[in-house]
Amino acid sequence: MSTPSRFTLTEHSLTLWRVTFDNAPVNLVDGTLTSELDEVFTRAENAGVAVMVFDSADPEFYLAHYDLSAKDELDHVLAHPEEVHPYTALLIRLSKLPLATIASIRGIARGAGSEFLLATDMRFASREKAVIGQFEIGMSAITGGGPATRLPGLVGRGRTFEILYGGLDMDGARAEQYGYVNRSFPDSELDGFVDELASRIASLDLQTIKDIKYFVNLATLRPDAEFKDQIDAFWAAVNRPAQQHVGKHLFEAGLQQRSEVERDLPHWVTRFQYRPGSDQE
Amino acid sequence: MSTPSRFTLTEHSLTLWRVTFDNAPVNLVDGTLTSELDEVFTRAENAGVAVMVFDSADPEFYLAHYDLSAKDELDHVLAHPEEVHPYTALLIRLSKLPLATIASIRGIARGAGSEFLLATDMRFASREKAVIGQFEIGMSAITGGGPATRLPGLVGRGRTFEILYGGLDMDGARAEQYGYVNRSFPDSELDGFVDELASRIASLDLQTIKDIKYFVNLATLRPDAEFKDQIDAFWAAVNRPAQQHVGKHLFEAGLQQRSEVERDLPHWVTRFQYRPGSDQE
Amino acid sequence: MSTPSRFTLTEHSLTLWRVTFDNAPVNLVDGTLTSELDEVFTRAENAGVAVMVFDSADPEFYLAHYDLSAKDELDHVLAHPEEVHPYTALLIRLSKLPLATIASIRGIARGAGSEFLLATDMRFASREKAVIGQFEIGMSAITGGGPATRLPGLVGRGRTFEILYGGLDMDGARAEQYGYVNRSFPDSELDGFVDELASRIASLDLQTIKDIKYFVNLATLRPDAEFKDQIDAFWAAVNRPAQQHVGKHLFEAGLQQRSEVERDLPHWVTRFQYRPGSDQE
Repeated sequence: MSTPSRFTLTEHSLTLWRVTFDNAPVNLVDGTLTSELDEVFTRAENAGVAVMVFDSADPEFYLAHYDLSAKDELDHVLAHPEEVHPYTALLIRLSKLPLATIASIRGIARGAGSEFLLATDMRFASREKAVIGQFEIGMSAITGGGPATRLPGLVGRGRTFEILYGGLDMDGARAEQYGYVNRSFPDSELDGFVDELASRIASLDLQTIKDIKYFVNLATLRPDAEFKDQIDAFWAAVNRPAQQHVGKHLFEAGLQQRSEVERDLPHWVTRFQYRPGSDQE
Repeated sequence: MSTPSRFTLTEHSLTLWRVTFDNAPVNLVDGTLTSELDEVFTRAENAGVAVMVFDSADPEFYLAHYDLSAKDELDHVLAHPEEVHPYTALLIRLSKLPLATIASIRGIARGAGSEFLLATDMRFASREKAVIGQFEIGMSAITGGGPATRLPGLVGRGRTFEILYGGLDMDGARAEQYGYVNRSFPDSELDGFVDELASRIASLDLQTIKDIKYFVNLATLRPDAEFKDQIDAFWAAVNRPAQQHVGKHLFEAGLQQRSEVERDLPHWVTRFQYRPGSDQE
Repeated sequence: MSTPSRFTLTEHSLTLWRVTFDNAPVNLVDGTLTSELDEVFTRAENAGVAVMVFDSADPEFYLAHYDLSAKDELDHVLAHPEEVHPYTALLIRLSKLPLATIASIRGIARGAGSEFLLATDMRFASREKAVIGQFEIGMSAITGGGPATRLPGLVGRGRTFEILYGGLDMDGARAEQYGYVNRSFPDSELDGFVDELASRIASLDLQTIKDIKYFVNLATLRPDAEFKDQIDAFWAAVNRPAQQHVGKHLFEAGLQQRSEVERDLPHWVTRFQYRPGSDQE
């Protein structure tokens, strides 16, 4: 395997691996991260890994969101409507990996970043430093990676609507109350808890982990086709004037840089809402 | 549209409308409210409204329950078993409206009142002044408007049974803990929170709201037929001696008046339980 | 009916019955308990009982887990793969009984004990003295009685994985936070709450209880076949060297006796994990 460029991989033991996102300036999700993770998943499956932990080297950003600068990606998607977008396919795979997956969340996880952690098995968050949300409605786009499908089984129908319609951030304590994450911890206790739980599970029986994954998935996963339809709806939104209007202004203001725009994205998006027929631009 | 008699309609903006229930003495649900709401839903859809808020002009009663005095309604229902009762049909429609719906709850919302708020997208409650519950078991009747179907996706199976078997009231704090409502607030903060959230959503992209509604409903709504069967079971119960016995005594004690019976209905119902073969009556 | 040997049955009234587990030394679940409960269920149904409460005579053990000493039971299971194991069949039946069921939990409820309470309608726990969990992964076995299927509808997908992968204990407060139980109470208040709720429901209309059970089950129960597959996977695990290795060492250390092993089972199991190819054994 070539050295990954978007994260570091630490093999703590034969059965416990850690992926630490490290993709300056703000840990964007992109096609390269997608393919590098896909490769690690294959290696982990083949190696009989029991537990994978996903955390971030950047205490301020877990995974900011999807890289919105990739204009040629939109062109590809529109030209190949029959394909499942690679990131959606990766998340579908992540939920079904025959091993236990844990997201350890410190910093901002919005949009595709939140979608990533929703596709893991368990989520633990820093009470003070986790910032979780689906800001996409502020970009005039449905969330593409499936939170409309995954959130109801964690937080219920009503809170799912609040998260997706509102597009606002949630801290660790609120995320725990809603069930968006399993638990939140004072920041100084998060790593210790996750390490102890991950080590424990990694010492237990791999066949049992696989059996648990199989039966819980049978009771909880929705059909793959629902994810395909959502990512298609997302790209259709990206291709509309409203999304392009907001995006253009956000990039000018500092999107995808280590900026106040990224730090408070849910409020910045409201500055640039598109009004058809007005002469804004 | 004729002026509604059961509520006031406030059009805050092109995209944000408010229905304020105002039907003295205790905000009963009845056929007139049902048809007036249905008409507003159609107007809102046609007008491209993005957000509807539902609150009450009466701080003590949100929606007390269904009007149980309409004897000719029972006759109609029994004569037309193929029809879906209009209130059930309204709630099915409410859950699918292509816009965001918010219940802002202060006062008593029992029976059909609780069913109404369960059919909205999001529920926010006054911590001290919200009183929510499904008292129908005390009237010897299954809940007709679908909480057996909707509650499990909000509060889980165990708490659904507690709510329906127990028939007791819940305050805002407990309703929040259970997920019956999204959040509860000190009474003085409820309106501010709801207004800010509603205004924000109303300023965002309507197509995205429709997409979110579609995909969340796909993952959360049960088949319409389950609601038909429940309302039929409710009316079958209304036609049994047990229900008529309790109802008769409750009306004598003050049901559907601004009375202690309405204020503490879950305990009043237990005074008049039917014992077949006894000479109560 | 012969006098049950694993519990006492108290008929508080015509409509309210109580089963109090009492099977020294630690309230194990076994084939005798299974058949005795099955007989009580039949009697209760025939007698028109409205509410059954399940509690324990032993404040330290609610139901410890399944009796793992029954070697001939494994032989029978392996020889009759077409049969649904009687305990699984009992739990499927318990969830569908046409009456309200309440688990009042004080002491340890692990493994098959936790599975029992998950199959009841409602669970109330002592905040300090309830100890709930699914330790089976520590025995290298998938949980057999269906928590992978039942937990998601109570605690959500993420917390289900935490409970099953981790195999750790949960106290009453955490169980309440997760929705594993409806509520927890200071130990001195548990009995009073359960008695009052049970008495109230037992005084209400039995047909309504049956209607509620029917409609909530329609919205929440998974197909019976998923339970059969899990118990089969459990027995397949029991037949593997890993499980037999852990079991042998645990019995030597005090399993199924009133011992520290039973008190802290989730940590004892980790002492004896099987390493294929090593010369432990």
